[in-house]
This record gives sequence, structure tokens and C-alpha cells, in this order.
Amino acid sequence: VSPALPATVLVIGTGLIGTSVALGLRRQGVAVWLQDADPEVARAAEARGAGRTGEPDVDVDLVMVAVPPARAASVISEALRLNLFATVSDVVSTKAELLREVERLVQDSSDLARYVPGHPLAGREVSGPEAAREDLFVDRVWALTPGPATDGTRVRSMEAVVAALGALPVRTTAEAHDAAVALTSHTPQVVSSAVAAGLAQLGEVEVGLSGQGLRDVTRLAESDADLWTEILTSNAVPVADALAGVVVRLEQVRAALLSPTPDAEAVRSALVAGGAGRSRVAGKHGGAPVRWAVVPVAVADRPGELGRLFADAGATGVNLEDVRIEHAQGRPTGLVELEVAPESARALADGLRAAGWSVRG
Amino acid sequence: VSPALPATVLVIGTGLIGTSVALGLRRQGVAVWLQDADPEVARAAEARGAGRTGEPDVDVDLVMVAVPPARAASVISEALRLNLFATVSDVVSTKAELLREVERLVQDSSDLARYVPGHPLAGREVSGPEAAREDLFVDRVWALTPGPATDGTRVRSMEAVVAALGALPVRTTAEAHDAAVALTSHTPQVVSSAVAAGLAQLGEVEVGLSGQGLRDVTRLAESDADLWTEILTSNAVPVADALAGVVVRLEQVRAALLSPTPDAEAVRSALVAGGAGRSRVAGKHGGAPVRWAVVPVAVADRPGELGRLFADAGATGVNLEDVRIEHAQGRPTGLVELEVAPESARALADGLRAAGWSVRG
Repeated sequence: VSPALPATVLVIGTGLIGTSVALGLRRQGVAVWLQDADPEVARAAEARGAGRTGEPDVDVDLVMVAVPPARAASVISEALRLNLFATVSDVVSTKAELLREVERLVQDSSDLARYVPGHPLAGREVSGPEAAREDLFVDRVWALTPGPATDGTRVRSMEAVVAALGALPVRTTAEAHDAAVALTSHTPQVVSSAVAAGLAQLGEVEVGLSGQGLRDVTRLAESDADLWTEILTSNAVPVADALAGVVVRLEQVRAALLSPTPDAEAVRSALVAGGAGRSRVAGKHGGAPVRWAVVPVAVADRPGELGRLFADAGATGVNLEDVRIEHAQGRPTGLVELEVAPESARALADGLRAAGWSVRG
Repeated sequence: VSPALPATVLVIGTGLIGTSVALGLRRQGVAVWLQDADPEVARAAEARGAGRTGEPDVDVDLVMVAVPPARAASVISEALRLNLFATVSDVVSTKAELLREVERLVQDSSDLARYVPGHPLAGREVSGPEAAREDLFVDRVWALTPGPATDGTRVRSMEAVVAALGALPVRTTAEAHDAAVALTSHTPQVVSSAVAAGLAQLGEVEVGLSGQGLRDVTRLAESDADLWTEILTSNAVPVADALAGVVVRLEQVRAALLSPTPDAEAVRSALVAGGAGRSRVAGKHGGAPVRWAVVPVAVADRPGELGRLFADAGATGVNLEDVRIEHAQGRPTGLVELEVAPESARALADGLRAAGWSVRG
């Protein structure tokens, strides 16, 4: 049997994440109190139905700390001090430095035993309680990174909370977590920006030579610079280490290209190694990538065409597994790729052709 | 008035690109002859209706050379020698080295005047005449890179051919072209592979911490290693130069992170520079990026749900500008983002909610 959900929860920090947690727990019948450094923000969360503002009149079972990273350590240690029986968790996106700070502030190991560090991998390009949603965490990974002092029972009860919010709890160490997000999140951000910065030197005509691959690689460069500066500096050494690995591999390719005769085998090895790494993230839950058959359809740039296409696709009775729309210069082009089970591709293509669509390939 | 299309064309090399050119020109009523080093391949193109195999019985107006890059220079020079009045063009994806080779092989400047180097930015993950399509080039950029000896009238007549195939002719120099594709195509490929290669060291649990950004950045790492080895080595110096720029920028961020106190301002500058570069390729035809309003809808993983969603969206009368489906671990998640004109977002969200959909945000 899985541990019961806490009956009473205090959420400190009622921005997007804190209010979304509160809404999700309210949905499960949990009693939730809301606090924020800005009372207006807490009241806005209350107005969303996320709980009630003010001091709890009971000893709460769980304190969720969802304040900005710079304030997290002091709020966590204070929460452990004031709530003698509660599990205390947080949502800060890098874990090792925060754990060190909390360990410094909280000397009593029985208090530290109640601290379960966490990181939900969910976010939006918006913030504040108004943008919160009870389903923000559905199907998202939520890392829990217990420290050496953390009590295992407390971890299991946080896993129940995470699962109740619809997320997938993943348990690892703070160090492994930070090294992993350095590789999977922070380094891609820096690299995307570094590639995009090179485009400043291109003329208007040459920009026209860019394609979908460039847009994929540089999409992250649109991210908010202030937010990412904070994230990157909070995970400085793991990110620097991961960047060093990327630089070594780029330099290997550069040296191979600059050999008197380009060293094709070295270039090829670098590409093959990339393909092997990519296969780690391309498949479902780490398994082999799913290969759907692609049915490409030309769509005119006229109102209603996409809706008409999907209606006709639905009428064929074939289940669409995925849809991709090719983009050029940031705008959809006329090509929509419908992905279906390989055995259904013919039926879909024939059905769409019969409905008058130009199916390519 | 734009120049007339050639009446007669010889296509040498009837793979995917050559046969697609031939099919597109046949559609315009042009007489096309087909040749390939492998007569079977030429006959397969003929069977597709791309023209007739064998030697033309007239002096053709245009020779399109679409052979593999390693053979292109000799085939081009031979075509100039054998077809005294024809314009000769090619489709090789890097231009400077090829132009130097052709200039070495063709000494007569009146012959060189008839050579119009070209590069259609179109391709598929398939090859051969069977995969060819008359609309392969529709809405694609097609670079023309005349050399110092190239006759301007010949360039304009190639622009008419390119336009007749539905592509967008773009005129630049071989050097500017190669530097541009190094930045916009070849460097993103190498960088994507270099980031992806770093994932090999991740444990199964840590792979679970990867998100959409990583998948965007590493998508290109799935590309064919042999094909890309050939492309990268054919543009070795411009790619090496572009990689050097990326390495410098990555090292700047790394140094900023490794300062005794991380240098937040330097990190931020790197991210801001990336955002500025990204804006060059995110907009329509180099203009400002179009910002659509996003209406996120939760979709259950059941057959027919996507079709039903688009049918209901169509029923609201709102025109969908774009559709994105969020992916995790290479599979679509339950979140579909419908993009519409900002003034239409409310109507779409309300209409979908009325139809029973869970519209987020």
C-alpha cells in the first residue's frame, strides 16, 4: 500500500508552482494554507481556490516551500524549526548547493531528517498564481533528492504527494541530479545560445539559407536571459564540466576538418557518438525509439485548411499518433506530416487522396 | 518579363534530386532527356514519367548535373564541352571548392560563362528516382552562386527554371554561400551531435530528467553519419571557422561560471547575444517573429482524440495558424498547443471548453 496523503499542507510561496501544487492537493481533499512574502499574491492564490491564507491552526503534515531560489534555504530551515512534525520539501531546480546551505543552517539531524528536497520538471513561460493549474505536473518528472540525513519514510510520503499531483517521482542524489540537468537542460541552453549568436554576422540573403535543423537547435535561445542566468549560475560547476565535454568534442571535429586532408573517419566517429547519445532520449521511457510511418500532406495557406485536413484524417478511421508541421523562417510551411502506425499509412494516404488532398511521397 | 523556360533539358544523374527536377520540368511541358551512370536508374526515372533515356537528338538548352559531389566537377566540365550552347547547372551543397575544380578543368572562359552553380535546399531522408516528386522544391530556397565568369543572362534563365519548380531563387557568391551553410546547417549538425554524445554517460534515472529543449537541440544527431561526413568534409574550412566561434562563446560562459563568484553579467550577455541571433531566423522572411496566441489543450492518449480535437477546433470557425504537440521521451504527451491570432484565442478556448475539452491556462 502506498503511504496516505498528508491531511494538512502549508504552501509557502504562491507563485505558479506553489499555487499549482496547492490546487492539485485541494482537488484531493487536502486542507491547504497559503503564505507568500507578498500578501496580495497569497490572496490571489486563495481567490483561485488554492486554500486559505494565513497561519495554519493545526500542526501541518507537510510544508511545501516554493519561494525564489535565493530565499529557499532560509525559508526551509525556518519551516523545519517552526513545524516540529512536518515533512518539508521544496521545488528549487538545482539541489546540491541548496542542500549544503540547509545543512549549514539546520544543525539538528532530527530536523534535517524531515527535509525532502525536490524538483518538479514543469514550468511555463508565464508566472504567478493566475497562471497556476492543478494539472501542471501531470506526466511530468518530479525529482526527489534525499540527503544523507533524510528519513526514508518521509521520502515515500513525498512520492505519494508527487504521484497524487499526476507527476512521476524519480529518486536520485543531489549531485547526480545536478550533473544530469547540467547535461540535459543547462548545457543545451548555453549551446543553443552560442550557435544562435553566430547568426548575427549573416546577411539577409544568407539567412534565407537556414532550415528546420537550425531552428530546432536555436529554439532555446529564445528563453528568458535573466531566469537562465540565475539557473546557470546556481549550477555553475556541473554546467562548466558539461560544457567542457562539448568543447572537447567540437575541437576534435574542428581538428579533423583542418587536417591537410580532412580526417573523415574522425568526423564520422563524432557523428556516430552523437547518434548513440540521441537514442538515449528519443525513445519512450528510455526504450528504443518508436518509428511511426509518416504521411506528408501539402496544405494551402488558407483559413480552415488544417481543421479540414484533420477532419478528413479522422474520417479515415486511422488513429493519428503524432503530427508535425514543417516550419520555415518560424512560420508553418505547407507541409503537414501525419504519423501513424506503419500498417495504417496506406489507408490514411488513400483516404486523404480520395478526399482531394495532395499526399506526397 | 521573365526569361522563357528552356525547351529542352538534359538531366545527368537521376537520383532523388535529378528526377524531381525532371518531373517538375516535364509538368511545365519541357522536353527532358535522362542519363545516369547506372542505366537501370535512368530507366527507373523514365518509368516515373520524368523524360526519356539516352542521348538528346537536339542541342539542349540546359544541362542539369545532379550526380554525387565527388563526380560533379568532371561531369560539369564534360557537359560544357559537349553542349556548346547549353547553360549547365548543378545541385552540389557546397560551392567554393567545386567552382575552383570546374575553373581548373574548363580553361575557356566562354565555356565557363555558361556554368551557373546552384544548390536547392531540399532533401528527404530517402533517395533514388522512386522517391522523387515534382513538388520537392516547392517553397524551398534554391541558391545560385555565379562565379566571376558566369554570364548574367544565364543566371536569369536559371532563376526562371528555379521559379518554375516552385522554389525561391537566392543569388549569392560561392564563399558567402559556404560560410552561410556552415553557420546555418553544418555547425548545428556538429553541435547537436556533440551535445547528444554527452548523454551516453547518463544513468537511466537521470535520462528521465530530460525535456523538450534537449530533444530539440539533439534532433539533428539522428542524421545519417556517412552523408554528413561527406558534407562536412566538403566544406571543411568554413565549418571549422564557424565551430571556432561556437567554442569561443562556450568557453566565455564556462570561464564566467568558474569564476570564484560566477560572473552573472557575462553569462547573461551570452544568452542575450543568442536571443538576438535567434531572432534572425525565427521570423517570416527575416522579419520580426510572428507571435501567435497559444491555446493549450489536454488530449487523452486514445484513438481518434486528435481528429476529434481538430474537428471541434474547426467548428469554432477560428483559423489555426500552427499546431505543436509537446513531446516527452520522443512520444507525444497529452498536450496540444493550438496557435491562433491573439484576438481569436478566447473564442477558440471557449468553444473547445463548451465541447468538453480541458483547455489549460
